[in-house]
Amino acid sequence: MISFPHLADIVRKNDAKIIMLVISGMGSAPDPVLGRTELEAARIPNLDHIAQQSSGGLTIPVSPGIAPGGVGSNLALLGYDPIIHASGRGAIEALGLGMTMESGDVALHGNLAVVDSDGIVVDRRAGAIPTTTAAPLMAKLKAITLPGVDVEVVAGVGHRFSVRLRGKELTGGASDTDPYEDRLAAQSSSATAKGGEATADAINAFSNQAAEALVGEALANAVLLRGASTMPELASFNDSYALNAAGISSFPLYVGVAKATGMTTYPVDDAFESHITAIREHWDDHDFFWLHYREPSTTAGIRDFNEKKRALERVDLHVRELIDLQPDVLVIAGDVSNPPGSIGHSWHAVPFVIRSAGTFADSGVVRFNERDLRSGSLGQFEAKHAMMLTLAHAGKLKQFGA
Amino acid sequence: MISFPHLADIVRKNDAKIIMLVISGMGSAPDPVLGRTELEAARIPNLDHIAQQSSGGLTIPVSPGIAPGGVGSNLALLGYDPIIHASGRGAIEALGLGMTMESGDVALHGNLAVVDSDGIVVDRRAGAIPTTTAAPLMAKLKAITLPGVDVEVVAGVGHRFSVRLRGKELTGGASDTDPYEDRLAAQSSSATAKGGEATADAINAFSNQAAEALVGEALANAVLLRGASTMPELASFNDSYALNAAGISSFPLYVGVAKATGMTTYPVDDAFESHITAIREHWDDHDFFWLHYREPSTTAGIRDFNEKKRALERVDLHVRELIDLQPDVLVIAGDVSNPPGSIGHSWHAVPFVIRSAGTFADSGVVRFNERDLRSGSLGQFEAKHAMMLTLAHAGKLKQFGA
Repeated sequence: MISFPHLADIVRKNDAKIIMLVISGMGSAPDPVLGRTELEAARIPNLDHIAQQSSGGLTIPVSPGIAPGGVGSNLALLGYDPIIHASGRGAIEALGLGMTMESGDVALHGNLAVVDSDGIVVDRRAGAIPTTTAAPLMAKLKAITLPGVDVEVVAGVGHRFSVRLRGKELTGGASDTDPYEDRLAAQSSSATAKGGEATADAINAFSNQAAEALVGEALANAVLLRGASTMPELASFNDSYALNAAGISSFPLYVGVAKATGMTTYPVDDAFESHITAIREHWDDHDFFWLHYREPSTTAGIRDFNEKKRALERVDLHVRELIDLQPDVLVIAGDVSNPPGSIGHSWHAVPFVIRSAGTFADSGVVRFNERDLRSGSLGQFEAKHAMMLTLAHAGKLKQFGA
Repeated sequence: MISFPHLADIVRKNDAKIIMLVISGMGSAPDPVLGRTELEAARIPNLDHIAQQSSGGLTIPVSPGIAPGGVGSNLALLGYDPIIHASGRGAIEALGLGMTMESGDVALHGNLAVVDSDGIVVDRRAGAIPTTTAAPLMAKLKAITLPGVDVEVVAGVGHRFSVRLRGKELTGGASDTDPYEDRLAAQSSSATAKGGEATADAINAFSNQAAEALVGEALANAVLLRGASTMPELASFNDSYALNAAGISSFPLYVGVAKATGMTTYPVDDAFESHITAIREHWDDHDFFWLHYREPSTTAGIRDFNEKKRALERVDLHVRELIDLQPDVLVIAGDVSNPPGSIGHSWHAVPFVIRSAGTFADSGVVRFNERDLRSGSLGQFEAKHAMMLTLAHAGKLKQFGA
């Protein structure tokens, strides 16, 4: 559901072209020792210059205090209500990996993992094994069959895979086997909602067969599954906004977000330059480009301040190439915050700027970071409003009401 | 619907008197050449002084990116949810012009206009013809009758009029004949919702008869109609807030907003001084005064930066007379933004201050404008919360919850 209820009454098609760059995990809180965030510490003169030319502010990913997942936080920036659309990760990621999801299909995110003889997780990510090394193990998972349930496995990046379950009476209402932290016990799946038993049984049967198939492997001896879900129903992005959108991301979950909202997707690799190349090649084919650059978030996942800083500096090196394309509106946003010292996502507000012919410098905003953008003209606002601001700056919204 | 759902539990009557001055179209974005807004360019020492003494911030008229009409944006400042109450312009304006609106009556806003022989609009406002010059043309419209539909026309200011249709099976679900821009074709009305056919037929029949009646007139040869609506159901302002409110405006639409919410209205002319005189004359009769001053918005409609600046300076010349009345709470707000270079209303946040015995200077706010008030203590907030802030400053709200 698009968050502004009367969108259809006010949306207007025009020729304006929009780029929305989402720098994943961009937001932060100051490092307790350095007293600065990664953005504050980074050398990002081009982003600073863009902030000086733009209207700026901070987005609250969901609502104050809420640390969102990748699905909800990105759907919010695309105008979907993240409180309604927080789930569906398993199905969306499977879609992003090229799986066909039919109505009633359930998919989960899987990790290859190492578990000890007591079932305690030693390494949730099997040493962050490279994709090529994981391939023979993935082949063993692909050979798994279950009675009465059609199983399909698709390998993702490194230790990651998706598994789709197709059969009667399957629902998304089954719990994860992944305990989310090392040194905790791998779980048995159970129903979390009425009718989830068959799915939980299939998840447990798959997990058991995977453990058997991996006996004797040195790098991984178990799988951990999470996010059981059917495909969420999402309003078409293009129909809702009268746009023809391209979604550009190297990461299956976000390729899935783009596909699930009806965008055309193009394959790219992890490098920010690859995203830029894709947008340049398809510049004439679309009027909205959603660029999701994952690297700052990945690096934040292992909580390395300097790695995240460098990933942000790599954006800065190439961001002017987006301006060279002469978009009518350039939005630079982040999906979530990943503060130093935190395990994962946080609730902290995230830098947001809009650069267009109709916007002017926000007095006092000198740098592109959390502290300076606090005084920007857009203030702090919930991320679900970002698309309406974007469309407004592109002249794509009529007056609401007489 | 009042936007705070538990208002009845916490509202409390006391003797405090409130003035809410709404300066229409006050907000803006910087002029692209000057780099300043009209408020920033204006010499407004009295408003600056009030901002220094007040709690201040910026209102978001509806939600980020949404440019609202006059009805929704003003109802929001009075505490009504502008997403629910965005329509009804035709009926509200008719009410403001003194028309009686019964249940089922449909009213529209009308313009006298000039249309060429191909039906293309040459001048939507018939040269902004003066009221007295328009009078004989209005007399011709008043003589129009339709079979099965009772028609009443009331002249407004200049080229404007209201037309009320009374008959069986009429609804608000019929489209406008006004194309909203010159050089576009005048439209035929059609049903926009189930059951709107009879209304569309009546609108088209009225338009045809008007064109016939105006044959041979030099100043206008057509009418353009918009905003077909029945009377919206609005909770009583006085009952909801335990107030006895006066609504003061020279403009029929806003007189209509005051009447539609149940306020007592007093006739005034366009000059700001006239509004002040009305409030002074009726000071003892009410505890809430809604002053809607239209001039800055009118002038912004023709996009003249200096005209709007001068209209704001005229407020400044007299605004201390409001303080001389010693209100317990003085609110100075704007309904929408009207940036230079834009055709109409915009989404930009609008200056807002509250001056009362219980408020203190907001550190750092030196001037009454968009930029300074960004750092005010009230922050940016949706306009629908303005009334609750106003009542709170007047001591008219009890604690919510135990």
